[in-house]
Amino acid sequence: MFRSFSLLPLLLLGFVLAMTTARTDEGMWLLNEPPRQILKERYNFDLTDAWLERAVSGSVRFNNGGSGGFVSPDGLIVTNHHIAADALQKLSSSKEDLFALGFLAKTRAEERKCPDLELNVLQSIEDVTARVNASVKPGMKISEAAAARKAILGEIEKESTDKTGLRSDVVTLYQGGAYHLYRYKKYTDVRLVFAPEAAIASFGGDVDNFEYPRHSLDVAFFRAYEDGKPAAVKHFFKWSKTGPAEGDLVFVTGHPGTTNRLETLARLKHRRDYTLPYSLYRLRTFEAALSQYSEQGTEQRRQAGTDLHRLANARKAMGGQLQGLLDPQIMENKRASELAYRMFTRGSSGPSDWFHSGATKIADIQLKFRTFEKEHALLERGDAFFSEYFAIARHLVRMADEMPKQSGERLREYRDSNLESLKFQLFSPAPIDAELEQIKLQTSLTFLAENLGGEHPIVRMILAGKNPAQRASELVKGCKLGTMDERNKLFKGGMKAVAESKDPMIQLTASIDAAARELRKRYENEVEEPERQAYAEIAKARFEVSGRNIAPDATFTLRLAFGTAKGYELDGKKIPFQTTFAGAFERSEKMHGREPFNLPNSWVDNKAKLDLATPFDFASTSDTIGGNSGSPVLNREGQLVGVNFDRNRHGLVRNFVYTEVQARHVSVHCRAVLEALRVIYKADKLLDELEVGS
Amino acid sequence: MFRSFSLLPLLLLGFVLAMTTARTDEGMWLLNEPPRQILKERYNFDLTDAWLERAVSGSVRFNNGGSGGFVSPDGLIVTNHHIAADALQKLSSSKEDLFALGFLAKTRAEERKCPDLELNVLQSIEDVTARVNASVKPGMKISEAAAARKAILGEIEKESTDKTGLRSDVVTLYQGGAYHLYRYKKYTDVRLVFAPEAAIASFGGDVDNFEYPRHSLDVAFFRAYEDGKPAAVKHFFKWSKTGPAEGDLVFVTGHPGTTNRLETLARLKHRRDYTLPYSLYRLRTFEAALSQYSEQGTEQRRQAGTDLHRLANARKAMGGQLQGLLDPQIMENKRASELAYRMFTRGSSGPSDWFHSGATKIADIQLKFRTFEKEHALLERGDAFFSEYFAIARHLVRMADEMPKQSGERLREYRDSNLESLKFQLFSPAPIDAELEQIKLQTSLTFLAENLGGEHPIVRMILAGKNPAQRASELVKGCKLGTMDERNKLFKGGMKAVAESKDPMIQLTASIDAAARELRKRYENEVEEPERQAYAEIAKARFEVSGRNIAPDATFTLRLAFGTAKGYELDGKKIPFQTTFAGAFERSEKMHGREPFNLPNSWVDNKAKLDLATPFDFASTSDTIGGNSGSPVLNREGQLVGVNFDRNRHGLVRNFVYTEVQARHVSVHCRAVLEALRVIYKADKLLDELEVGS
Repeated sequence: MFRSFSLLPLLLLGFVLAMTTARTDEGMWLLNEPPRQILKERYNFDLTDAWLERAVSGSVRFNNGGSGGFVSPDGLIVTNHHIAADALQKLSSSKEDLFALGFLAKTRAEERKCPDLELNVLQSIEDVTARVNASVKPGMKISEAAAARKAILGEIEKESTDKTGLRSDVVTLYQGGAYHLYRYKKYTDVRLVFAPEAAIASFGGDVDNFEYPRHSLDVAFFRAYEDGKPAAVKHFFKWSKTGPAEGDLVFVTGHPGTTNRLETLARLKHRRDYTLPYSLYRLRTFEAALSQYSEQGTEQRRQAGTDLHRLANARKAMGGQLQGLLDPQIMENKRASELAYRMFTRGSSGPSDWFHSGATKIADIQLKFRTFEKEHALLERGDAFFSEYFAIARHLVRMADEMPKQSGERLREYRDSNLESLKFQLFSPAPIDAELEQIKLQTSLTFLAENLGGEHPIVRMILAGKNPAQRASELVKGCKLGTMDERNKLFKGGMKAVAESKDPMIQLTASIDAAARELRKRYENEVEEPERQAYAEIAKARFEVSGRNIAPDATFTLRLAFGTAKGYELDGKKIPFQTTFAGAFERSEKMHGREPFNLPNSWVDNKAKLDLATPFDFASTSDTIGGNSGSPVLNREGQLVGVNFDRNRHGLVRNFVYTEVQARHVSVHCRAVLEALRVIYKADKLLDELEVGS
Repeated sequence: MFRSFSLLPLLLLGFVLAMTTARTDEGMWLLNEPPRQILKERYNFDLTDAWLERAVSGSVRFNNGGSGGFVSPDGLIVTNHHIAADALQKLSSSKEDLFALGFLAKTRAEERKCPDLELNVLQSIEDVTARVNASVKPGMKISEAAAARKAILGEIEKESTDKTGLRSDVVTLYQGGAYHLYRYKKYTDVRLVFAPEAAIASFGGDVDNFEYPRHSLDVAFFRAYEDGKPAAVKHFFKWSKTGPAEGDLVFVTGHPGTTNRLETLARLKHRRDYTLPYSLYRLRTFEAALSQYSEQGTEQRRQAGTDLHRLANARKAMGGQLQGLLDPQIMENKRASELAYRMFTRGSSGPSDWFHSGATKIADIQLKFRTFEKEHALLERGDAFFSEYFAIARHLVRMADEMPKQSGERLREYRDSNLESLKFQLFSPAPIDAELEQIKLQTSLTFLAENLGGEHPIVRMILAGKNPAQRASELVKGCKLGTMDERNKLFKGGMKAVAESKDPMIQLTASIDAAARELRKRYENEVEEPERQAYAEIAKARFEVSGRNIAPDATFTLRLAFGTAKGYELDGKKIPFQTTFAGAFERSEKMHGREPFNLPNSWVDNKAKLDLATPFDFASTSDTIGGNSGSPVLNREGQLVGVNFDRNRHGLVRNFVYTEVQARHVSVHCRAVLEALRVIYKADKLLDELEVGS
């Protein structure tokens, strides 16, 4: 419903009230600022230090964009199949398709080492806001402020890494309202233990993605190793044998990627009218190209699988975001809430002034940003070069320039504190398919020309007198970065080796680097730093009015969410909170077993042996977003009752606003995993290990 | 290869030579200006009046965008399955899927009447250039000139219709260099006789589309009726029993839709940098949305089938066009050819001045056009409303305004001469699927907002305080235009009925009509008319330099092309000029019979009975483009040796430049049809009828 203007005073009152009280399950809470009081008031739950400690140390961040949790003292980790997909693909070949057909290590010796999977486990959080802000002196020009802030962030991270040996990241919270230092233990020897077939892991495919009811066994197991032996971990989540009843309190500990709830109206309008249309254009372009490629045959399909899933998933997520921002009620509420802040005066210089000043600056920043956002995305973020070879070439070219500098003066990703993780990726032995590279690069270069026009000097330089297909072919055929030797030679040879390289991808990357760096600088000086300063003003107003009762937006760092296992009503029908194995067989039959509703043979053949009443997936109100995929879902006792893997479509607006009327996150039920491992996959050792944990 | 500047003088000489001699099979020739001399010189073929008369009277235009030809004296017509697809879909229901499963009328009584298929057969052509141009007086303002030209075109068409009773269209040739009046006999009682299964008609689907070698039985048969009886036609093409040998001369008589070869460099750059990127964005958006819809189940798949095929086909065609325009050689050649014209001086005021003046104006027009092209496409052309209901609503709203006016003052599509065809479409009883409408409209409205931004006043007006999904739902659920009664009521009730209508789709359409009409007027006055005038100057230069040895660009009117049945070389391999049935079975096996390489059961079951050496599809150099689909391919004797259905990917640049090195058009071989009808479909009566013809 569109609210008319006459409701405004009432709305404003509502927003002012909402500022000081929390009345929903909203919140991706910081683990060092946990919602103890809210949990006590809403659920009569005492969040103990012991509970929190296990939540922190048992939670795992998948560096490629997901979450997971330890589930045995021997470093066993559960996550989603779709988070494992990247590793599964890299462990596969035209002869053996682990992604499609699944995998089970019968012994520890059979566990397969992933070429470039890095896991992080949070060790500590430290508030460094004062130190960061103190480095930016009053009267500094924006470019000076940006440089000063970059320098202090580098200094803090380096100091921490030097002292603790841990991966150390300063995280910007409240868009610039606070800065916390996160220290992580890293695991880079990670081995695959179990994955089911893709057909059951993502049963229903793109059709059922972001929908509910669901029937997906979207899980996979890995094991962290240290010094060649399974990692011995103190904290892990016991695997529940029962799971939640409807109405039970559940928790999600994971790494939500990005939300935009505290952004201003002007920023959201920019997203709606510029960023999202461009992103959807990009996603649909690559999805169309890779769909056509994968239709050419089984091997092409295998190669393009992971990229295609990611593109389709992002397209659906961003499509939902756009619908959200085109919903006048959401925008009107945001407007009213800003109005409430602007009217919330306290004394002569109070929150309203701070808010007004920050919001005005942010509106101005968007006007600038739109003049170079596309070029920045294409050339610096790399949308014009969706290619593994390009990614490697860019790192090699930039490292040649950056490594001779002092760590604090380098681009952030090449600082000493980040170097180890970066090299782990750069020297990944994962295979690169040249045919797939060709399609991706050809599509990228065409997309570049579509966006900037054929006369744009940089487009002409990049295409070098060829059409995109010819140019991509020349770049891919001539590129030798598939071999470790070549990467090593360029990495060790530094500036001279790069300058002398005849590799066309290295030459292309080098030729555009000045332009790309210039765009990055503009972004940092004209968008990032001024937004941080402006949002710091807004945060000041926010904290003054309502304290810290609003969690910061998601930043792909560990957060704690909570909610109720609960169904919902849709078009007058009650949607139950959980599904069963029986439901999967019914849905497959109804869809004539056609892809993506084809159950694997292992399921069809063992149907009679399965307890069809086993709960499969379940829904809860907890506040999650992309990045939470694979998050442990816990009960009051801290036992694992599920593995989060999705939201329903009503939850797609969660980037901007939390709602719990119909929006739900969706998890694989703990019992589904146990029953499938026992009956379908005969994974007795794995079951024993989960049992020992419990 | 990119040609460097030093070759320019040589290039120029080449272009000047090319202006006066034709050395390739290029040309979609006017039937009233046939290439007799070229055919005599290149192929020693005498194009007789009798041959031409049969070509004109035997060729059929499918008003929904394709071609066909009479193949028996009883009005039997052959075309492509993909041209028949629209009718097949409209004749289908959730209970009977003629598109997927095919159809054979065993008797004439079983032939199925198509709800809204109109066929046109050309009766005469008359040059009216002088009369059209005389109406535009020197010194007239552009808006006056546009009005005068509209008026004279209307007058000529009305005069002709009144006099002859025939459908009469004035066609703009050479982008404004000439005007010809085309008169057509119309058939609106057209019945389906035969269609094979979609799986063999478009074997290889999107993967093989615009590729060669091919294995598609892309044919269907209809019959034209008059007064409830099969139309008796004097001219038709005899069905050849042998087909062409490699190297044979073949002809194509069909209705190529659009080419852009005579457009100026500035116009092509506009296409490359504005029109094509926008169009590709649109096509991919709708393709993604409808693909997802059709994955939801068999019935959704059936509903979305025709739209999806059209979108995918257009996406691939336009993708190829964009690659062509991003090819520096093609653009450089165009530039050099323009330079040659500009240097071709004859006296003080000669072709170079005319060319220069026209080309400069066209460059200026593009600068204006880009400021409102998107809005024009969205609101007036209807990209923001990809919906059957909207199409009906717009006609009803506009007819209410237009019908009270004099015919000559109406928008072109509502003039008396066009009214009959329009009403035939408007009152089509073809079913409209509300669920499909919802998806299409929701996607359209989102696309509108993506393109114009959420703050645009017309976007806000159209969305009316809802998000696109909600607004589409409200429009589709409330729309009653699915019933003939409602359409009739509004059609007969005129302005009053429209003004009082509570139908939300009628109200929406009426509310944006003023804005849409304004954009149309701007297009006509700022682009169409000035371009016509400018291209008239260019045509004057062209005719002066090289006479009429260059055919005009395609205009979806009857043209004659010719060429050689011929294979080609690709990456050092010889691609044979024709494929065989055996090749289809091999390809299907190689692709594990997976969609779109699944042969229908009828083919699998009858494999042993088929002569596997039967030629299936063949390639030739003739000059064709979209719209030629279904065109009869004829031999020297005027017998039908094939049915054109596609080009290979090398032919995708044909919009801009003709090449015959590797570019080929692709046809179903006449023998493939005979063998399939005999062995697979047991269509004895149909075979008898083709036999009688032969």
